[in-house]
Amino acid sequence: MALIKLHGHYFSTATTVVLCCLNEKQVDYELVVIDLLTGAQKQPQYLALNPFGVVPTIQDGDLTLYESRAILRYLARKFKGQGTDLLGSTLSEQAVVDQWCEVEGHSFNTPASVTVYQLLIVPMIGGSTDQAAVEMNVEKLKKVLDIYEERLSKNKYLAGDFFSLADLQHLPRTHYLVNLCGKGDLISSRKHVKAWWDDISSRPAWKKVAEKISK
Amino acid sequence: MALIKLHGHYFSTATTVVLCCLNEKQVDYELVVIDLLTGAQKQPQYLALNPFGVVPTIQDGDLTLYESRAILRYLARKFKGQGTDLLGSTLSEQAVVDQWCEVEGHSFNTPASVTVYQLLIVPMIGGSTDQAAVEMNVEKLKKVLDIYEERLSKNKYLAGDFFSLADLQHLPRTHYLVNLCGKGDLISSRKHVKAWWDDISSRPAWKKVAEKISK
Repeated sequence: MALIKLHGHYFSTATTVVLCCLNEKQVDYELVVIDLLTGAQKQPQYLALNPFGVVPTIQDGDLTLYESRAILRYLARKFKGQGTDLLGSTLSEQAVVDQWCEVEGHSFNTPASVTVYQLLIVPMIGGSTDQAAVEMNVEKLKKVLDIYEERLSKNKYLAGDFFSLADLQHLPRTHYLVNLCGKGDLISSRKHVKAWWDDISSRPAWKKVAEKISK
Repeated sequence: MALIKLHGHYFSTATTVVLCCLNEKQVDYELVVIDLLTGAQKQPQYLALNPFGVVPTIQDGDLTLYESRAILRYLARKFKGQGTDLLGSTLSEQAVVDQWCEVEGHSFNTPASVTVYQLLIVPMIGGSTDQAAVEMNVEKLKKVLDIYEERLSKNKYLAGDFFSLADLQHLPRTHYLVNLCGKGDLISSRKHVKAWWDDISSRPAWKKVAEKISK
């Protein structure tokens, strides 16, 4: 059977979250590097796969699929019986996994992305960090993480007592916040969030990805 | 069997999208109105159901669930054999439904929400519309809708030849853009997007909801 092709780049958190999922599911793949620095994601060859011009996109046989969170669900479903189960067993468990995946996508992702962009990417490309934007988004993150703290005081993982896509989706951006943006205090100041982060970030599937992210 | 309780409000697009889904699935429910105008969503009674203090939340037996897109998937899965199928049949179809649901959540939703907020809500609460924000977000919407136009020139619906959650998720915000914000040209200027909109917005499940949204 042909390997799944993953078109993406290690710079992209949306790519590394899919790589982590492939590792958790013990699925072999071929990484096709899309060179973001030269704008390869905006070239016709890539746009034919993904008209939005962003990474990642996977190809699995006849299926071409983009949007990282959709790819995660596809991999988790297709390889349900292989590697780590990431979806939950019952209808209710699956719903709660979905709920926390949506919390990540709509409450955590935006303030985390803006903070990483301002503190890490803007200086890299020769700009000046907008400190007001950082402060505003760090405040938003604190409020979200206070809710996580309460949740994780009662459940080991976001969706319950099992590691799931909901936790996995947080790995790349939190890694950047903690290890590359000096925002580790957001995590370490919250006892249960810290225990959760120490647990999920030490999973072999993620460590294998994290060691390839430039420091 | 006890009815599903839906805590929400007709002002909320996240509530009306769930109402539309309940209608498509022919599921009876009890609407518990959370009065957004008095801030009931931030009161302890509601925060005990949903710590983020936003609507909607459903209660189905022992399950309490928030995040509208997670609720939609739960309803579509739980009532798979009832009413309109909204998920697709095969693993690939489901993946493509998920992909376009994520496109709605991450490419369409934000510019549509900002546009509706600036053109409709800000004047309602006595403020002045930020025209620059409107222009910037309308430009973003045009780019997204150009991709939809291309997609819908080859497929009747976003995920293929069947109506799905991916289409349904677009109903409330597009309704506001077209019918309450004077932005119908975004739709009518694109032949295939217009045919799609005319089709999905005339579904009885949505019309029943739309007629209750104040004009």
